[in-house]
Amino acid sequence: MATVKLIEYEDASPEVRAVYDDIMRTRQIDWINNFWKSLANDPKSLKRTWETLKEIMAPGALDPLVKEMIYIAVSTTNNCEYCIHSHTAAARAKGMSEEMLMELMAVIGMANETNRQVIGFQVPVDDVFKVES
Amino acid sequence: MATVKLIEYEDASPEVRAVYDDIMRTRQIDWINNFWKSLANDPKSLKRTWETLKEIMAPGALDPLVKEMIYIAVSTTNNCEYCIHSHTAAARAKGMSEEMLMELMAVIGMANETNRQVIGFQVPVDDVFKVES
Amino acid sequence: MATVKLIEYEDASPEVRAVYDDIMRTRQIDWINNFWKSLANDPKSLKRTWETLKEIMAPGALDPLVKEMIYIAVSTTNNCEYCIHSHTAAARAKGMSEEMLMELMAVIGMANETNRQVIGFQVPVDDVFKVES
Amino acid sequence: MATVKLIEYEDASPEVRAVYDDIMRTRQIDWINNFWKSLANDPKSLKRTWETLKEIMAPGALDPLVKEMIYIAVSTTNNCEYCIHSHTAAARAKGMSEEMLMELMAVIGMANETNRQVIGFQVPVDDVFKVES
Amino acid sequence: MATVKLIEYEDASPEVRAVYDDIMRTRQIDWINNFWKSLANDPKSLKRTWETLKEIMAPGALDPLVKEMIYIAVSTTNNCEYCIHSHTAAARAKGMSEEMLMELMAVIGMANETNRQVIGFQVPVDDVFKVES
Amino acid sequence: MATVKLIEYEDASPEVRAVYDDIMRTRQIDWINNFWKSLANDPKSLKRTWETLKEIMAPGALDPLVKEMIYIAVSTTNNCEYCIHSHTAAARAKGMSEEMLMELMAVIGMANETNRQVIGFQVPVDDVFKVES
Repeated sequence: MATVKLIEYEDASPEVRAVYDDIMRTRQIDWINNFWKSLANDPKSLKRTWETLKEIMAPGALDPLVKEMIYIAVSTTNNCEYCIHSHTAAARAKGMSEEMLMELMAVIGMANETNRQVIGFQVPVDDVFKVES
Repeated sequence: MATVKLIEYEDASPEVRAVYDDIMRTRQIDWINNFWKSLANDPKSLKRTWETLKEIMAPGALDPLVKEMIYIAVSTTNNCEYCIHSHTAAARAKGMSEEMLMELMAVIGMANETNRQVIGFQVPVDDVFKVES
Repeated sequence: MATVKLIEYEDASPEVRAVYDDIMRTRQIDWINNFWKSLANDPKSLKRTWETLKEIMAPGALDPLVKEMIYIAVSTTNNCEYCIHSHTAAARAKGMSEEMLMELMAVIGMANETNRQVIGFQVPVDDVFKVES
Repeated sequence: MATVKLIEYEDASPEVRAVYDDIMRTRQIDWINNFWKSLANDPKSLKRTWETLKEIMAPGALDPLVKEMIYIAVSTTNNCEYCIHSHTAAARAKGMSEEMLMELMAVIGMANETNRQVIGFQVPVDDVFKVES
Repeated sequence: MATVKLIEYEDASPEVRAVYDDIMRTRQIDWINNFWKSLANDPKSLKRTWETLKEIMAPGALDPLVKEMIYIAVSTTNNCEYCIHSHTAAARAKGMSEEMLMELMAVIGMANETNRQVIGFQVPVDDVFKVES
Repeated sequence: MATVKLIEYEDASPEVRAVYDDIMRTRQIDWINNFWKSLANDPKSLKRTWETLKEIMAPGALDPLVKEMIYIAVSTTNNCEYCIHSHTAAARAKGMSEEMLMELMAVIGMANETNRQVIGFQVPVDDVFKVES
């Protein structure tokens, strides 16, 4: 149960509805997921977050599926149940196969393992990695 | 400064040298980075970790550059300085451009932001995301 | 389901009841929340934790509502469902409005975003921030 | 050492300089801290992040000093050295006394302690905390 | 609900069944827990993870109960509900008393508290702790 | 560099000196490490934290070396450089061998790996793990 009210389309102000409409149009769907309904308690925050997300997740130097998998990697490391479910669904919709998901989780697991070993031993960064960019 | 001794090639046992040799051969380099030198205090752990990493990071359903970027996403979220430096260098060696790195960090930042908002509001997972797999 | 027994008032030892009584008296309520019932499996730990919490959360240089919001910020970043629910309720009881909650979450989200970008880029601390205190 | 180039004012494009100018004007300072210099590698990201930060950290239902202390709470829990230094300096500039800082750290420490105990015992959320909002 | 199919014994390939058989034989139980059923979507990952776990958790310089308690400490700090339940059950099966569990949680709580205070104050490491190993 | 002044013995109030004296007497050493010098900016917090730590880390159902290793597991997962150095030194002083440290790090690494896989797949807790305690 959310700690704030989830604002449904029919109860939303015109300002909020405009964002909801843009979300549905952009994603070509006819419903709004709960995250946006929670943010809608602050219309400015809703608008800013949606516009930022739309810009960041658009095709660019990285393709949208790679971006979704990066989102899953962060969400898994942060243990965000909602985000894991929503971005796994989004990645599948963009073409992630089961084999890709299994490899993604293997990399995430391995990275979490070696991150902690490196930290636990306080391994100093090799000079060669500190290349002038 | 590491909390354990870093085992140099010249001080290593034949068992450790065999792993070091495989690392250098596989990566086509002539040096060993500090992480392996710390693990070498337990030769079995060194061998197991290297073989697992070699298998997981090899080309598969995901290409090696995507895997490196996922490693960076996890390492950044876990705040592993060593890992950020080593995997950013590795990703660049595999073709990551500056533009790709900037997009990667934008996605990592955004994911960390929305992860926390979702958690802070305790947003319930939409039923539609819980598709039977 | 908890991994330990939750000790109810009627099953509690006099030592535990004394702490429960002080919690109810201090907070002017007539019930005990589950966290204390789990800690009651170790009466010394229950007593020490309650007394520390009572001291730390009391009015001081910071007012109690600000302290509750800081608790929410930490609990959200650590993803503690129980703590988010209990401290959001406590903050509202101390006067947090919906507008304040929305701003709190915006700051928490933003901080998590820029924290990771700073870490991902390994940005060095500006000298000017290292002022002698 | 950063993994990207830090873009100095004299090397910056007009688009980046416009943001740098706004940062200095808004904060009434005559220098730019390293975080912005790293983001400047992607001018759109620099502009968006600065504008979002300016909006979120402005006076509102919460006062700017409270917002800085929330930033410190998140940055401490995430272990962001840069952010701890920069936001502790910012909070002091906005009036945080040493006594306030000590109380802030006591609350952050306590929250981290009880968060983990609640999680370790898997304490179920009391029904009374799940109030309809 | 898992994001992947949980592979039951009767639906498993011979390769997966061989691992399942070894898990049941090693642990002297007649069922497989859900974690392995999720990993079984990638038989190589299942086999590698099981063999690594078997090797790492075996009696060595540390006894298996201590290893289980370390697992609980990490799982609690990472907030892994599944892992807390499974490893608390495993530790009890290996002889962890309620008193030991309460002390374990007290140490975990304290460590999380002082970790954050040290980080929040950016306390420099004393030279005496940096002993040559 | 710390964000607060480190209070040396010669500059300390009698209240702080009394705690410093107890730390040195209890640990049979003749110096105070930096963590306590940072907490000394709030003498009540110093006293409370030291007394809690002394009580929690004392021999009990778990022996002090096991407690130190649990502290290392938490500090590694939280990435607390100071704490890793100080508790690794403390564990060695209490008898931790290099072999024990290597096993400890292997368990910490493995736990971090499987924690994330379990979370990433959103594996449901097996009913058998939810035993009534």
